Amino acid sequence: MLVVKVGGGEKINRDAVCDDIATLAKEGQFLVLVHGGASEMNEVAEQLGHPPQFVTSPSGHVSRRTDRRTLEIFEMVYCGKVNKGLVERLQSRGVNAVGLSGLDGRLLEGERKAAAKIIEDGRIRVLRDDYSGKVDRVNTGFLGLLLQAGYLPVLTPPAISTQHEAINIDADRAAAAVAGALGAGTLILLSNVPGLLRSFPDEDSLIPILKRSQLDEAMALAQGRMKKKVLAAFEALDAGVAQVILGDARRENPIRAALAGTGTVIR
Amino acid sequence: MLVVKVGGGEKINRDAVCDDIATLAKEGQFLVLVHGGASEMNEVAEQLGHPPQFVTSPSGHVSRRTDRRTLEIFEMVYCGKVNKGLVERLQSRGVNAVGLSGLDGRLLEGERKAAAKIIEDGRIRVLRDDYSGKVDRVNTGFLGLLLQAGYLPVLTPPAISTQHEAINIDADRAAAAVAGALGAGTLILLSNVPGLLRSFPDEDSLIPILKRSQLDEAMALAQGRMKKKVLAAFEALDAGVAQVILGDARRENPIRAALAGTGTVIR
Repeated sequence: MLVVKVGGGEKINRDAVCDDIATLAKEGQFLVLVHGGASEMNEVAEQLGHPPQFVTSPSGHVSRRTDRRTLEIFEMVYCGKVNKGLVERLQSRGVNAVGLSGLDGRLLEGERKAAAKIIEDGRIRVLRDDYSGKVDRVNTGFLGLLLQAGYLPVLTPPAISTQHEAINIDADRAAAAVAGALGAGTLILLSNVPGLLRSFPDEDSLIPILKRSQLDEAMALAQGRMKKKVLAAFEALDAGVAQVILGDARRENPIRAALAGTGTVIR
Repeated sequence: MLVVKVGGGEKINRDAVCDDIATLAKEGQFLVLVHGGASEMNEVAEQLGHPPQFVTSPSGHVSRRTDRRTLEIFEMVYCGKVNKGLVERLQSRGVNAVGLSGLDGRLLEGERKAAAKIIEDGRIRVLRDDYSGKVDRVNTGFLGLLLQAGYLPVLTPPAISTQHEAINIDADRAAAAVAGALGAGTLILLSNVPGLLRSFPDEDSLIPILKRSQLDEAMALAQGRMKKKVLAAFEALDAGVAQVILGDARRENPIRAALAGTGTVIR
């Protein structure tokens, strides 16, 4: 079992990702694709007059402010534009893809963070109208049903809360939860960098291999979005995934290159 | 097996529709929900600076002009906003809903109309960059898999063409195709009128019962969007559905009222 997560950043080559998935699927590889869509989300939210806002937690994590209107736009971009765009690409390559959010069949379930502490103007404030959380349970029965019947699941946030609300979740960490729950051998996290860089943004400073014991070192080197990917990678290892590869989605054959060891391999 | 289609027009009471579905699902009724979203589509398309356009066929049918950008917005509204909104409502009522477009698992497949004739300024013109068509095949195997496993499918356009492109389809006629393919006993088409009216918009002129032989009469009375619903209803009967009910989605208990015979019953 292989779980691949592809981001939505600039220069991401979705066609190349889908080419590789088609090749692997035809070779009989069981595969689940998870995707994000943050940059398209920001663009559409601007166009719709509800520009993105980000909040910083006391520990320094930056995340999207997700009020109910943001959630609605989020569903339009992630579940509509990006998800169906990927499903159409895969179908055109002969892969019988099925696009699903975490709401569908309660695929991705978790607690909504009822009160999120944020830092605003140097003070701690509590947000109570935010719809975000993290994945605690994956409906592996549903995924198994689809995979056994020959369908390739294409998964996207939002997840569903225990109170049945749609919640924004981090797609990298969701992919880690899926990989762990399915007992995947490999999780590949693709983005628009070659992997973890020792001196960001110098792409020649790629770290080719990391050990499980090097989480703190990796977190110290990771910049911006890469922090969440490193966190997700180590969560996947903790959940029993044998290896996680941080790979480059701007190139041809991004998945096969990652499987061949190009990128940052963490095991 | 019961197939319900709910439109997206003004005053549609989606909460009441979902309340009824939850009640019926708990009684063990196998049910598939199909939805549209035209009015929300028009709104979002305006907001995104790509206002809706409609074209008229030589036979007088009015349909949405669906260029590639329209299709993208269509997917955002139908597959994102409306579909996930319904799935969330159903999940909060204890129904394990799964939202899917016709692309997913090739649920709804048909021919793209390669060259659509339209009337423009009194002349016939041929559109070649339009993405629309009609449903020829329903993946009943996939729907059966979901229903048997206890999931309630919530289906939305677009469909997928034989050339693997997303295509805009009429949701009423898609619901008729689904009902026919599943061998449903009843198809309910809910909208913001009480049924077929003898003198539109006089709601007291509701026609309570129509026979299969009365297609021509019904088509002559139907105004605007109702023409597609009447067409869909008779297509469903031709496909073996025992009865079609045109019901009112603005009221409480819209599905149970229709099942009790409130609306226009066609058999």
